[in-house]
Order: sequence, then structure tokens, then C-alpha cells
Amino acid sequence: MKKGSPRTGVRGKVTRTNLPTEIRQDQILLAARKLFREKGYHGTSMQDIADAVGLQKGSLYLHITSKEDLLLDIVNRAHQDISEGLEAIYQLHLSPSEKLKQAIRHHTSFIARNREALWVLLEETRHLSPEKRKAVDTQLKRYTDIFASIIEEGMRIGEFRPLDYKIAAFSVLGMCNWLYRWYSKSGPLKPEEIADILSDIILVSLTARPDETPQPLDKRQ
Amino acid sequence: MKKGSPRTGVRGKVTRTNLPTEIRQDQILLAARKLFREKGYHGTSMQDIADAVGLQKGSLYLHITSKEDLLLDIVNRAHQDISEGLEAIYQLHLSPSEKLKQAIRHHTSFIARNREALWVLLEETRHLSPEKRKAVDTQLKRYTDIFASIIEEGMRIGEFRPLDYKIAAFSVLGMCNWLYRWYSKSGPLKPEEIADILSDIILVSLTARPDETPQPLDKRQ
Repeated sequence: MKKGSPRTGVRGKVTRTNLPTEIRQDQILLAARKLFREKGYHGTSMQDIADAVGLQKGSLYLHITSKEDLLLDIVNRAHQDISEGLEAIYQLHLSPSEKLKQAIRHHTSFIARNREALWVLLEETRHLSPEKRKAVDTQLKRYTDIFASIIEEGMRIGEFRPLDYKIAAFSVLGMCNWLYRWYSKSGPLKPEEIADILSDIILVSLTARPDETPQPLDKRQ
Repeated sequence: MKKGSPRTGVRGKVTRTNLPTEIRQDQILLAARKLFREKGYHGTSMQDIADAVGLQKGSLYLHITSKEDLLLDIVNRAHQDISEGLEAIYQLHLSPSEKLKQAIRHHTSFIARNREALWVLLEETRHLSPEKRKAVDTQLKRYTDIFASIIEEGMRIGEFRPLDYKIAAFSVLGMCNWLYRWYSKSGPLKPEEIADILSDIILVSLTARPDETPQPLDKRQ
């Protein structure tokens, strides 16, 4: 979420002249995100969040509306940040192979650099009320659909071999998403090096080979 | 966890003549698992669990020791169930390709059929106390290590192309694990059909091609 844009979980108007409030709101969001990651949404109390930013619990409510709206803000911000990059790549005039490579690189690097945000997005979203969760689920589906669409196009023009493109998209995302569980900053590889390996694993598998007889696409495709 | 074996979270001795108690304990475990999946560990109260099995909260403590030990039981049982199959495959006298294929099939099918158990294992384990979590993390590491070891052997004997085998193992597991998030029983594909597609994606990528010049393994391998 861009600075200055309205936030569901945040009270009051954020203006340029109101910088300390904005900084305070960011501080609260970051503290809540860290706590949700460590203790889970339900395991985190408003008192925990107030303590983390050095406020009285009562004063916390001057800055935010509710714990649930805080979670929604965190989730929306994470989703917006990761989606912007993918949407931009999707619009580029590139071959499906090149687009998929860039999408994997973007996705992997983002996750490695924003593990906490991704963790909360992926694991705590289910604690939102059904209505709020629905909007997030729609956004997540759009993200998956972009990957599926790139792969499907690659198959259609013969760059990729015929496969169930939806399962292929889930596979690519699962492979990359899993980084939020195992990646460590202190490990031997940089995010971009890992992205190159994952991209290689997927592209070598999907790429159609000239010496192979093309097979008809599965009916469901 | 096998029936009749001691359970950390369960009070009293479980014997063959004590069947109703055992059934009650299983019932409590299943109810707690469902609640942990839906509401999270911290979002589930002992009262919720008592209500789900039609007991008074006080009576619940006749059957279990604590909510945390219930979580540990659920996690241990899920891990034991999925590990037994993998350990058996790992001991088979098969080529690494065939072993990997079977391991992927086992892993994928298990997840598709035990989503709830896997969900709690993967997302709620972090709410165990550090000491209890450590034992679970060690078990999970062993599981990953088996996949890494099969892939590493395949590379060593030239069946698989040279790659970072640890990243390859995380990729395979991430790809398969992600099923606990997207798989639906009402979808068009059976677990074994999905397993075949995932196995195909991985094996086509990893398999060394005779027309390719072998490259030296990365130093870190």
C-alpha cells in the first residue's frame, strides 16, 4: 500500500504534514506483522502490539481501528507489493519462456527478501472474516492465474510441451513459495542465485524439444 | 502414532481392554485437529474442544494433559504417518529416478488425502514451545534429507544432471507440499494423477540427457 493512501485499519487522514502519525502507523504495522508471524494472529493481543511500539493500549486505538483491520492492511500491503512486479512483467512483450523466467525471478527474490510479510499473507489470512478473506483470495487467485496464463501461452505457441498448465502453475508457485519456509539470509546463496536454479528446473522441464513428437493437449486444457 | 502407544497429551494407560477411552482420545485429537486447522492453535480454546466432543471442560482434562500436548500429538501422528511410507521407499533397491518417482507419489497422495493433518503440521508447529518444536523440526529435516539424498545419489551415478541437490530437494517438496493449499477433493484430478504430473515435471527436468556434456558438480555439493 502506498504511503498516504487510505488504510482500512488506520484511523484519521494521513497527509504530508502529518508525518509523525504516518511513521507511527508504519511502526505499528511492522510490529504487528512481526508478532503475527511469531505468535500467530490469535496469539497476539492488542497489549502485545502496544508494548512493542511503546504505547498504552488505549493510545494504540488512536492510530488503528482493530486487530483484524491491521491484519488486513498487512496482507493487502504484502499482496500489492508482490503483485505490482508480476503485473508489470506480464505486460512485457517477451516470449512466454522469458516472461516465466522473469516472473520466477521476481517471485523468488521478493519472497526471500520479504519472508515475514509472505508468512503472514499465506498463513494468517484465514483468520480474517469470510468477507474480508474473500477479497484477498480473489487477489491471490489473480496472481496464480497470471502464472497459468504465461504457461498456457507457451504451450499454445509450442514453446512449452503439453501439460496441465494449471497444475504446472501451482507447481511453479509451490516450488517458489516454499522459500518462505526454508530460505535463510545466512545461507550460501543469494535470492537471485536461488531464483536462477528454480527457473532452470522449471524451464528445462517445460521447454518443448524439437526431437519430440508433439502430443495433443489434454482435453481439460 | 500407533494405537496403544503412549501419547504425551493423553492421560492414563491405554490398553486393549480400555477401548472406549482410546476411542474418546482419538475423537478429541480429531476434533482438536479440525479446530486448529480452522481457527489456529491460539484461536482454539479448551472450551471449543470440549464443546466439539460433547464433554464438560473439566471432563476433558480426564483424557488429556494440555492443549499444547494435544498439538504435539497431532503433529507427531501426522509426521509418523507420512514418514513411514517415505522411509520404506528409501530402503528399496531401486534406481534414484524410480525411487524419486515413488517418493513424490507417496508424498503427494498423502498430502491430498490428509490436508488437515498436514496443514496443522506445517502451520501450527511453530506454536509449540521451543523444546518440543525442536524435536518436530528434526523430524522434518530428516524427511527433507531423504529427498536430498535420493537426488544427490542420482547425480552421483549420472542419472540426474548436475544441480544444487539441496535446492532441488526443497523444490520438489515445495511443489508437492503446496497441494495442502490448493488441492480440492471435488477437482477433476485424483491424487495419483496429480502425483504423476508433478513427478513428470521433476523427472523430465532432473534426468541427464545423453547428448549433453556432463558438467562438474557445484563445489557446495
